[in-house]
Amino acid sequence: MDIKCAGIIIKPGGEKLKDTYKRIKKAFEKEDIAIKIDRSSAQIIGEKDGLSFDELCQACDILVSLGGDGTLISVARRSYEYHKPVLGINVGTLGFLTDIKPEDVESFVKKIKKNDFRIDTRMMIEIAILGKKERILSFNDVVITRPAVSKMIYIDVFIEDSLMNSYYGDGLIISTPTGSTAYNLSAGGPVVYPFSNDFIFTPICPHSLTQRPLVLPAEFEFKITTKSKSALIVIDGQDMYEFTPKDIVIVKKAPIGAKLIHRKERNYFNVLREKLGWGI
Amino acid sequence: MDIKCAGIIIKPGGEKLKDTYKRIKKAFEKEDIAIKIDRSSAQIIGEKDGLSFDELCQACDILVSLGGDGTLISVARRSYEYHKPVLGINVGTLGFLTDIKPEDVESFVKKIKKNDFRIDTRMMIEIAILGKKERILSFNDVVITRPAVSKMIYIDVFIEDSLMNSYYGDGLIISTPTGSTAYNLSAGGPVVYPFSNDFIFTPICPHSLTQRPLVLPAEFEFKITTKSKSALIVIDGQDMYEFTPKDIVIVKKAPIGAKLIHRKERNYFNVLREKLGWGI
Amino acid sequence: MDIKCAGIIIKPGGEKLKDTYKRIKKAFEKEDIAIKIDRSSAQIIGEKDGLSFDELCQACDILVSLGGDGTLISVARRSYEYHKPVLGINVGTLGFLTDIKPEDVESFVKKIKKNDFRIDTRMMIEIAILGKKERILSFNDVVITRPAVSKMIYIDVFIEDSLMNSYYGDGLIISTPTGSTAYNLSAGGPVVYPFSNDFIFTPICPHSLTQRPLVLPAEFEFKITTKSKSALIVIDGQDMYEFTPKDIVIVKKAPIGAKLIHRKERNYFNVLREKLGWGI
Amino acid sequence: MDIKCAGIIIKPGGEKLKDTYKRIKKAFEKEDIAIKIDRSSAQIIGEKDGLSFDELCQACDILVSLGGDGTLISVARRSYEYHKPVLGINVGTLGFLTDIKPEDVESFVKKIKKNDFRIDTRMMIEIAILGKKERILSFNDVVITRPAVSKMIYIDVFIEDSLMNSYYGDGLIISTPTGSTAYNLSAGGPVVYPFSNDFIFTPICPHSLTQRPLVLPAEFEFKITTKSKSALIVIDGQDMYEFTPKDIVIVKKAPIGAKLIHRKERNYFNVLREKLGWGI
Repeated sequence: MDIKCAGIIIKPGGEKLKDTYKRIKKAFEKEDIAIKIDRSSAQIIGEKDGLSFDELCQACDILVSLGGDGTLISVARRSYEYHKPVLGINVGTLGFLTDIKPEDVESFVKKIKKNDFRIDTRMMIEIAILGKKERILSFNDVVITRPAVSKMIYIDVFIEDSLMNSYYGDGLIISTPTGSTAYNLSAGGPVVYPFSNDFIFTPICPHSLTQRPLVLPAEFEFKITTKSKSALIVIDGQDMYEFTPKDIVIVKKAPIGAKLIHRKERNYFNVLREKLGWGI
Repeated sequence: MDIKCAGIIIKPGGEKLKDTYKRIKKAFEKEDIAIKIDRSSAQIIGEKDGLSFDELCQACDILVSLGGDGTLISVARRSYEYHKPVLGINVGTLGFLTDIKPEDVESFVKKIKKNDFRIDTRMMIEIAILGKKERILSFNDVVITRPAVSKMIYIDVFIEDSLMNSYYGDGLIISTPTGSTAYNLSAGGPVVYPFSNDFIFTPICPHSLTQRPLVLPAEFEFKITTKSKSALIVIDGQDMYEFTPKDIVIVKKAPIGAKLIHRKERNYFNVLREKLGWGI
Repeated sequence: MDIKCAGIIIKPGGEKLKDTYKRIKKAFEKEDIAIKIDRSSAQIIGEKDGLSFDELCQACDILVSLGGDGTLISVARRSYEYHKPVLGINVGTLGFLTDIKPEDVESFVKKIKKNDFRIDTRMMIEIAILGKKERILSFNDVVITRPAVSKMIYIDVFIEDSLMNSYYGDGLIISTPTGSTAYNLSAGGPVVYPFSNDFIFTPICPHSLTQRPLVLPAEFEFKITTKSKSALIVIDGQDMYEFTPKDIVIVKKAPIGAKLIHRKERNYFNVLREKLGWGI
Repeated sequence: MDIKCAGIIIKPGGEKLKDTYKRIKKAFEKEDIAIKIDRSSAQIIGEKDGLSFDELCQACDILVSLGGDGTLISVARRSYEYHKPVLGINVGTLGFLTDIKPEDVESFVKKIKKNDFRIDTRMMIEIAILGKKERILSFNDVVITRPAVSKMIYIDVFIEDSLMNSYYGDGLIISTPTGSTAYNLSAGGPVVYPFSNDFIFTPICPHSLTQRPLVLPAEFEFKITTKSKSALIVIDGQDMYEFTPKDIVIVKKAPIGAKLIHRKERNYFNVLREKLGWGI
């Protein structure tokens, strides 16, 4: 892979990251990789000459997300059509997805130049609400939940027109393996190896005591309906859609996964143990 | 206890309960107990001559809730200041609180006349939002939660100005023993014997993996604050209050508990096993 | 598939199943499928002329297990080297694996004759204790646990010589997808679709509050050691092996899965919902 | 309380604690409190002139446990008949019960001399197996479990001859509030405030998905039987008793609680948050 241009996106509220941006820019340019910046990111740190997000995706070979896991997820979702690998540079605490720190940038860019890195592909979910044009993509999870806090909702899930399960309670999380360590974990779901091809269906505070998290193959296509007057579909905690008894929601694996750039020696279980505080 | 008058309240949407109401009225009058009806209940079933809820509480020795557990809880909360025992007559599936069915009314009213019944006192919670006049009472639970589905909230709980615990996630349930089999159970909390004097603090989908449900003595008084821009306090799933970083919420045991009329032979564990489907 | 001979195995303690055996035998013979019986099974019901289990596996095209899920699992494990499909006939309550009842035998054998059935392949686990010759096969789960009830045990799990996780507590369940609805479910593990290629690692009463069930790809090979003076490895709740700090245990997917004969129209989720009591 | 003599007990395996013992002895003697030592403890550290445990309890006003929570629990149980307050000096990581470190001994003994300390009373459980003379006392928990790892056990619990609940699975934990942060927590039970008067019944890996932890008043007396050929009763992880279908086990609150000496300013929730890693 010949990388000539990297496009930078900075997290909203990242006004203090101007120096970090300059450090990254210098590191890439030293290795003859041009740096371009997204227009809103440029404004955040008071730079000129940004490109629109789509121009950036077209012009660059890789994207660089400067922020936390949330910024990386947003970049991966918005750049989905361009299939560009994304490198996450982490400015806070260790993330599940972003493990390159600003102080590691110089040495890691050298490795990138030498093709000494890894591209991990992460399963994404594609959601369609029948009758609406938009195709929705999810990196972590699709959460079906209630708009008001005081009512439980009913959700029916079908596979090939046959009832799979009915849920009644606060809602349902449909998670990718990557999302299994996010909201799914708080709701009692299992950790699933991030390069598996699985959906995780985890009920949120189910009324029935016998409901359990369910791990299902990525090959399944699900049809979801609700009997509740109004429900909400929340994608990666970032976008929200109304869901009414008239709607049919189709959930399936996205045809292409997100591509994340990592160190070759990165070990998932080391990150997991550190993030979850495992150890005796 | 000499019962001369019983005041009936019918669940909202109980239009079809007119015959049941008449049956109950007849059964009580046969035993020389006058029946009066709440004004809105009278309208629901097309009767005349209802009293306002407060007049009803003043005029009658006991209250009769015709509906499910939700109706009984609402009656217990609204009649709190009058300390009147409440009899729940259950028109649907077996409830945790209401176990007299319409077909049992005649025989049970005879027992009431002979003082052959039991009054169970159930701990209630008193909530005050400092600076606001209203005293709020809860029968089942006080739920502190987030208004929008995509944000987690921060909650700090203090006992005598000393931090008890900090919660971060979807919210926190503070439950009475009676409420332990309601929302608390869906969120993973324990079942607590209903005549215990305990609070149950159960986090809802906590971000931290080490948080656990906590059972605390009813003697404690809690001071609760939030760092989140806006949160909600939901009482028994019925009433809702805003909760902002400026507010201090005081949670303590209500000075007097709710009084429920039951058969003398009623056994809590039999109800529990049947409701939860226990058995091997 | 041309089926000329079916070999029957009867559950230990199945003395009362003689009539059922005769009914099954008659049903198969009517469709020109010879029935042979396992020697110990013959003794149980007082029949003569049984074959040894190995002779039975060699002589027959399919095996018929008469009993519950436990009998079927035992037959699948013992017949592993012969790759013979197994039909489970269920004489008790509905099983997860055995759903043909004695009264359905006549109609289902007709379908078998017409090749109107399905063979499901279920992932199995192969376990080797280094330095010992035996190859151990598991259908449901490999449970690493403590011999005495009062001590917790330490377990280390490695993938390619790199630490995956350390467990400290009552033990560890390594389950197949099929086994996910067995002991794994009692210990808090997720339900995994039975035709997935996954291991489920579920800690039993872990001392650490942050441990969670883990779903891992079947392609992984695990090396397991213990720091505890003596531990036990229990296979499918049926066989037991000692496990000491000197031992290295290798756990991987068995090269071939178990083959189960089912009705074509059998729907896993219908069985799951019925067995777990799902429904609102 | 006038303290003239303190009796020291050292944890088994505490050979290296001789210097710590001497430091403690000096600190007490400086405040005119005589130190006597338990005979087996004396042997552990190579001292002469130890008293038998019973002589020690009779001769001294308080007992000092040098070790961890396990040592303290053992001292509290063995000294039960003498009602002597116990001070735990912790030689390892922070315990739930023992929070005085060897380096704090001098300053804390001064406080003891000035009566500037607190005595906390902890509920204990009394167990009797009908027909056997021994009265058994438990500080943390009574665990009813299976002897062999591959079988589940049946347990029936009665209150006043009326069935409370039936358990089927790996076993049942009956915990004191103090024990709620021990095995009970690993098995999914709630944390209960240590000065509450409650039992916690938590099933271990129950076969039924609807079983939940149960918090019950200390006033109840339980009668427990098993249908399983052989089960075990384990007290505080330290003592073990056989339990057969012929046995009736009575479990109730012990008439007197254990007395623990603590700093006046000790705050339970601070210890809890630190031990469980609570914090955001």
